[in-house]
Amino acid sequence: MPFVEKVLKDPVHDEIVVEDPWIWQLINTSAVQRLRRIRQLGTSYLTFHGAEHSRFTHSLGVYETMRRVLAYLGKEYGFPETERERKLALAAALLHDVGHGPFSHTFETIYPVHHEEWTKRILLEDDEIARLLAEVDDSFAEDLVGILSKRGKHRTIEQLITSQLDVDRMDYLLRDAMNTGVNYGRFELGRLIRSLALADGAVMLKESGLHTAEQYILARYFMYTQVYLHPVTIGSDVLVGNILRRAGELWTAGQLEDMPRFLQAFFVEQSAVSVKDYLAIDESTLLYAFRIWSTTEDKVLSDLAERFLNRRLLAPIVRSELNSVEWAALRTSARAMGFHPEYYISVRKSEVSAYVYRGSGISVLKTDGSRSELSMESRIVRSLIPDTEYRVFLPKEMVEGDHAVAGRVRSIIHQQG
Amino acid sequence: MPFVEKVLKDPVHDEIVVEDPWIWQLINTSAVQRLRRIRQLGTSYLTFHGAEHSRFTHSLGVYETMRRVLAYLGKEYGFPETERERKLALAAALLHDVGHGPFSHTFETIYPVHHEEWTKRILLEDDEIARLLAEVDDSFAEDLVGILSKRGKHRTIEQLITSQLDVDRMDYLLRDAMNTGVNYGRFELGRLIRSLALADGAVMLKESGLHTAEQYILARYFMYTQVYLHPVTIGSDVLVGNILRRAGELWTAGQLEDMPRFLQAFFVEQSAVSVKDYLAIDESTLLYAFRIWSTTEDKVLSDLAERFLNRRLLAPIVRSELNSVEWAALRTSARAMGFHPEYYISVRKSEVSAYVYRGSGISVLKTDGSRSELSMESRIVRSLIPDTEYRVFLPKEMVEGDHAVAGRVRSIIHQQG
Amino acid sequence: MPFVEKVLKDPVHDEIVVEDPWIWQLINTSAVQRLRRIRQLGTSYLTFHGAEHSRFTHSLGVYETMRRVLAYLGKEYGFPETERERKLALAAALLHDVGHGPFSHTFETIYPVHHEEWTKRILLEDDEIARLLAEVDDSFAEDLVGILSKRGKHRTIEQLITSQLDVDRMDYLLRDAMNTGVNYGRFELGRLIRSLALADGAVMLKESGLHTAEQYILARYFMYTQVYLHPVTIGSDVLVGNILRRAGELWTAGQLEDMPRFLQAFFVEQSAVSVKDYLAIDESTLLYAFRIWSTTEDKVLSDLAERFLNRRLLAPIVRSELNSVEWAALRTSARAMGFHPEYYISVRKSEVSAYVYRGSGISVLKTDGSRSELSMESRIVRSLIPDTEYRVFLPKEMVEGDHAVAGRVRSIIHQQG
Amino acid sequence: MPFVEKVLKDPVHDEIVVEDPWIWQLINTSAVQRLRRIRQLGTSYLTFHGAEHSRFTHSLGVYETMRRVLAYLGKEYGFPETERERKLALAAALLHDVGHGPFSHTFETIYPVHHEEWTKRILLEDDEIARLLAEVDDSFAEDLVGILSKRGKHRTIEQLITSQLDVDRMDYLLRDAMNTGVNYGRFELGRLIRSLALADGAVMLKESGLHTAEQYILARYFMYTQVYLHPVTIGSDVLVGNILRRAGELWTAGQLEDMPRFLQAFFVEQSAVSVKDYLAIDESTLLYAFRIWSTTEDKVLSDLAERFLNRRLLAPIVRSELNSVEWAALRTSARAMGFHPEYYISVRKSEVSAYVYRGSGISVLKTDGSRSELSMESRIVRSLIPDTEYRVFLPKEMVEGDHAVAGRVRSIIHQQG
Repeated sequence: MPFVEKVLKDPVHDEIVVEDPWIWQLINTSAVQRLRRIRQLGTSYLTFHGAEHSRFTHSLGVYETMRRVLAYLGKEYGFPETERERKLALAAALLHDVGHGPFSHTFETIYPVHHEEWTKRILLEDDEIARLLAEVDDSFAEDLVGILSKRGKHRTIEQLITSQLDVDRMDYLLRDAMNTGVNYGRFELGRLIRSLALADGAVMLKESGLHTAEQYILARYFMYTQVYLHPVTIGSDVLVGNILRRAGELWTAGQLEDMPRFLQAFFVEQSAVSVKDYLAIDESTLLYAFRIWSTTEDKVLSDLAERFLNRRLLAPIVRSELNSVEWAALRTSARAMGFHPEYYISVRKSEVSAYVYRGSGISVLKTDGSRSELSMESRIVRSLIPDTEYRVFLPKEMVEGDHAVAGRVRSIIHQQG
Repeated sequence: MPFVEKVLKDPVHDEIVVEDPWIWQLINTSAVQRLRRIRQLGTSYLTFHGAEHSRFTHSLGVYETMRRVLAYLGKEYGFPETERERKLALAAALLHDVGHGPFSHTFETIYPVHHEEWTKRILLEDDEIARLLAEVDDSFAEDLVGILSKRGKHRTIEQLITSQLDVDRMDYLLRDAMNTGVNYGRFELGRLIRSLALADGAVMLKESGLHTAEQYILARYFMYTQVYLHPVTIGSDVLVGNILRRAGELWTAGQLEDMPRFLQAFFVEQSAVSVKDYLAIDESTLLYAFRIWSTTEDKVLSDLAERFLNRRLLAPIVRSELNSVEWAALRTSARAMGFHPEYYISVRKSEVSAYVYRGSGISVLKTDGSRSELSMESRIVRSLIPDTEYRVFLPKEMVEGDHAVAGRVRSIIHQQG
Repeated sequence: MPFVEKVLKDPVHDEIVVEDPWIWQLINTSAVQRLRRIRQLGTSYLTFHGAEHSRFTHSLGVYETMRRVLAYLGKEYGFPETERERKLALAAALLHDVGHGPFSHTFETIYPVHHEEWTKRILLEDDEIARLLAEVDDSFAEDLVGILSKRGKHRTIEQLITSQLDVDRMDYLLRDAMNTGVNYGRFELGRLIRSLALADGAVMLKESGLHTAEQYILARYFMYTQVYLHPVTIGSDVLVGNILRRAGELWTAGQLEDMPRFLQAFFVEQSAVSVKDYLAIDESTLLYAFRIWSTTEDKVLSDLAERFLNRRLLAPIVRSELNSVEWAALRTSARAMGFHPEYYISVRKSEVSAYVYRGSGISVLKTDGSRSELSMESRIVRSLIPDTEYRVFLPKEMVEGDHAVAGRVRSIIHQQG
Repeated sequence: MPFVEKVLKDPVHDEIVVEDPWIWQLINTSAVQRLRRIRQLGTSYLTFHGAEHSRFTHSLGVYETMRRVLAYLGKEYGFPETERERKLALAAALLHDVGHGPFSHTFETIYPVHHEEWTKRILLEDDEIARLLAEVDDSFAEDLVGILSKRGKHRTIEQLITSQLDVDRMDYLLRDAMNTGVNYGRFELGRLIRSLALADGAVMLKESGLHTAEQYILARYFMYTQVYLHPVTIGSDVLVGNILRRAGELWTAGQLEDMPRFLQAFFVEQSAVSVKDYLAIDESTLLYAFRIWSTTEDKVLSDLAERFLNRRLLAPIVRSELNSVEWAALRTSARAMGFHPEYYISVRKSEVSAYVYRGSGISVLKTDGSRSELSMESRIVRSLIPDTEYRVFLPKEMVEGDHAVAGRVRSIIHQQG
């Protein structure tokens, strides 16, 4: 049977069009399908209940955005010149997140291999994906890895995939805004795409697209300040991290029986986890683990796991940094209430960085042919200098109520300049 | 600290308002939070990638819809008269789905206790929920169960929760349409609510709301024909059912080692699963089980599990019913290709039933005070007589390709009047 | 300067793309620009305040819809084969409404030349348009007229422009729903376009598009019953008609001084109004006329005009037909209150006809290659048999209040079987 | 008949609710109905074809926004305390634009009475409105005028109506974005309303609403830069101004016959136009006038009028200011081509001012009870310092083409630093 173009309904782009059977086969690999079991926004759904969408839907959206970008660049700039380059761009878009694991960013604090590293290994080592990539030619997979590593060989595609004006952000800003139900975070996707220019192999912004780019940068600013770095979400991440840390320590010490088979490799020191091992885990593995740990003997682990599952999260306190005296006092207070400070008090610095001009700013191609940098052209963008928030997370019981400890903790917390 | 009204952003209703701390506590019970780990549309996300929303978001939406209905009925009809009734209505809305399990409808084919039965047991037996309900008074939980069982004591609330014009459908039609990304399935929620009338304690439709009700009934029709009964989704359900059946048989026969702890109780014959056991499982339990079964020794189980995880689903064939000769021939063909017919060939009848007038139609309150029934008033509604589709599901390999078996299967399949 | 593709923001289609300078020139003719001064839905804005959009925006939308249909048909069926045919299709879409006048349907009751007739004359006689059409070739304008007259020479384009599955309806249903703010009247435009098939030069519906077509037909049904035939709107049309009739009679009798210059030709008996005369009038002409007539000496005319401007419309009464006795009694009552019955009592039959199968139904191309007709395939569509409503319009003062006449009128009105 | 609450469908707010028969009567006055014949965005529809909505729909939207604000303030702050104040607030919202004339801002350059002045006179002098206002009490109309004049007696209502955080802007930003079809200009209306605080009788912004207010201010920024000050729109305004100026001069000089009756008063020097005269004109009056002037003998007037009607607008050239030599050269060039420089060359400075902190900034009520000003709290808002653009408008024929004059004009235009 000849391949019939697939049109998938999508809440963001209305329709996602798959014209090429090879792309359809990539979508149907187990490595890509696994992304259906990993939420795009990690623990954000505990803050914004609608944020339940997966990395799979995002990956399709990035693919679709790239497809539209290429249609435009093809017409305007004759890019890409070859079918091979087109395939590189589309595959890079579809597969750029394939190495994400469950609650990736937090998981990386336990098993310190970055998800981008996994992405590359999967492209090269997963049988199914590698076979499909090799269908194009022998060096295709390597070139794809090169693009995701920004090695410079396919500079235009690299910038379209990863830069401050890339198809990844274009999709996720719109998709995350839509699913969380917030009204900000919108920009004109069609016009932003038409504002792209190619010059000297680099992706630039046409001067006429200045305001459209401002909208897009501001969408990022609002999503960061209001959604991505929401203190409740960060507190959930902290909890996941502490659960995994405690479980790992117990397991290594031989004090934990219930460690799901697929997770074990990640907790053996200096283990070499294989791609196959890695692809075997997804969010259901961790959620299942949390469930069994919630009934385990270790009081710290069972309590933390139960807190996560039932959304009794750690409370976020915005503070300037704690000094060592305050820090010691907090730990003492925690112990006084039976909370092991190592697992119940955490600090986290969150950085809002809607736009970074140093090194990698967005290039603006001006009408007269000269080049500039976006923050030079836009006062609004210039105003978005990175900002940091310092937060302390601890059990709500430590701050609320009439008891003496709570009083002491409250006084520590508010003792700031 | 006094309770501050919570406003949750929602992609469907824009905002969900929780004015009552008691409702907020119900939302934060582990039984309700567990619904975050159960998708609203079961396996539909394998057909419509956006359908990843959970029963938790739907439950909040039903609560919000009820809240708006009560605001209207309160103003127009002085209903409900008491705060207790108001609490019954809101709690019934929030908790009506609390007994749903992972892939409920399919799961019920394995452990044959209906999710509605579980809902009632949870209200009565789960410590946390029971305690909160008892805060109102001792008979509150029993009254709530009575409402969900339609015992007739609180007839108006019963109809608002479960009838052909209920808050459950009002939310899920809009929410499912939005998440799948389809454009149909919309109706005017505000106007539908204002079209409700109370007469003799029964919920009726004002005559002036006829067309609005038609939209709502048609939304149901389109969602059923296009989304809920999509053959790819039904095929995914069939697969889940066959996996669970095979796993259960192997486990009972002592031929399966890997049975997640929390699932075991469901596979012991005549077991009495406790509410606690039931609440311990969610979609992550099944997905985790599928993952470990995908590496088990039994070829049937491992293949089926792997098919589900990687979306290599059974192909749906629309047929008039198979006769015994065709049926035998199909089974022979399956065996010839190494597919155990018990687990690889299934049939399913799907019934589209957008509106049922018998017994429980929507009552229309006419301007002159007389009563009618919706299908009497609307030709369109009358045209929606229930329809059934008969489908056969089998591995794609059995129908595609050049080999002899495929040829034979194709000829069986197309041999119809 | 080379022509740069124009992208116009549009509330319905997001973007309208003009790739061809010739189309851009057509858009910028004075005949097309004049459509900016004629509302798409006539007097509907007096019922749905958002319905203020013009025939100009609709015409752009029909053009855009055609452009998308052609892109699809080109790819799938190689249609149209020539650039000339493509131009015919696009120009027909853009210009199909160019002959509409202010409140066209009502205006035609005064000066009985149908707006479709004007469209054809404008294509042939307006200098600017005729010159642009002649740029293609000498017979282009005549062929365009042929398409709008359904002469059969370009059957496919004719059906795309005017049939029950045409680009005109596709745009207006979506646009009118959006502007009135109603939630019904939506369907999946992209999928409906992809459900079109060409066979034997005829436009058909693919069997797989059955439900999508049902949505579209139902959109029509709801827009007719809820919006287009809303009794308040029909009452406004009646008022416009009566104003124009009265003004015409006075003018012909030499009893009206204030007749805007451009309107005069229309009130001279058997006058031959030129295309130039016709294009000189738009809604501002009539609204200006109503304003000056609202201060004229004739009490009937000034009162009617003032009623329209200040939205003191005639009240609609739904009735079965009046018999001659009732009719006489109503007229007597009107006179008793000083209302000239000829201008203050009107009846109107409105026909809802969402789908007509006779002669011109939508052809369905079935998977097996056979043909059917939509109402044969869809019970819902079959249920939409045309329906008629009979309404009487009269001043509210005649029905409301305590006075004797109102009592008598109310008894006539309610005396029905 | 008792008054039944009216629910009007609205494309922005979904539903507009009129609970009070007195408000319904105000809506139905001829002064308010007249706003249906005045477009909200003046000539913007010539740039964004969807911008066809009227000041009437906007006025309803402002009323609805105020209604929602009062519902919130009532619950949280017990404001307003009296029914009279509530009526003042709602009436002020509904009527705040009632003095707008056709293309107001431009019209005021001809007859220099500000539309706000007309609003106040209409409240006091229009029989119908004055009578309804007097129904409340004798000083009600005067108090309403006081609110619109910001006399300080009802400070809270004054700020809700006119400040940088007022219901007027809340509605128009959302409505204009929706109708033009742009995706920016959105903010969370519900949350912005809930971010309002009352302290010392002043309207303030809660600190927690900082980012929501940023969105709202940025919506303003984008709508100004992209829509309201679009050069094509400004060019259309310039044209309207020049038409009216020329017509006025000819009329005063006795050289114009065709002056619509209702316009005459505005062109008599030092005339005292009555409220009744003013309310008799609307956009149809000007469009009708342009139509008749397009056929008048004076070549300048007929050409300008015809340009407007057929959208052959003046071309905008962005420049730094012209010096006197350049200015003289441009005028000479215009004359060389037969264009009277007084009417064909215009300059306009447009000021983007999304937020002004001096004097009237938005007060922020911080958690600790202290006060601040929005631009102190938000770097983004601080970055929005007012900006000015200088533009020259002239006929396209003067800049395009091969002829000598065009060459000269182009060299003048580009001769800038």
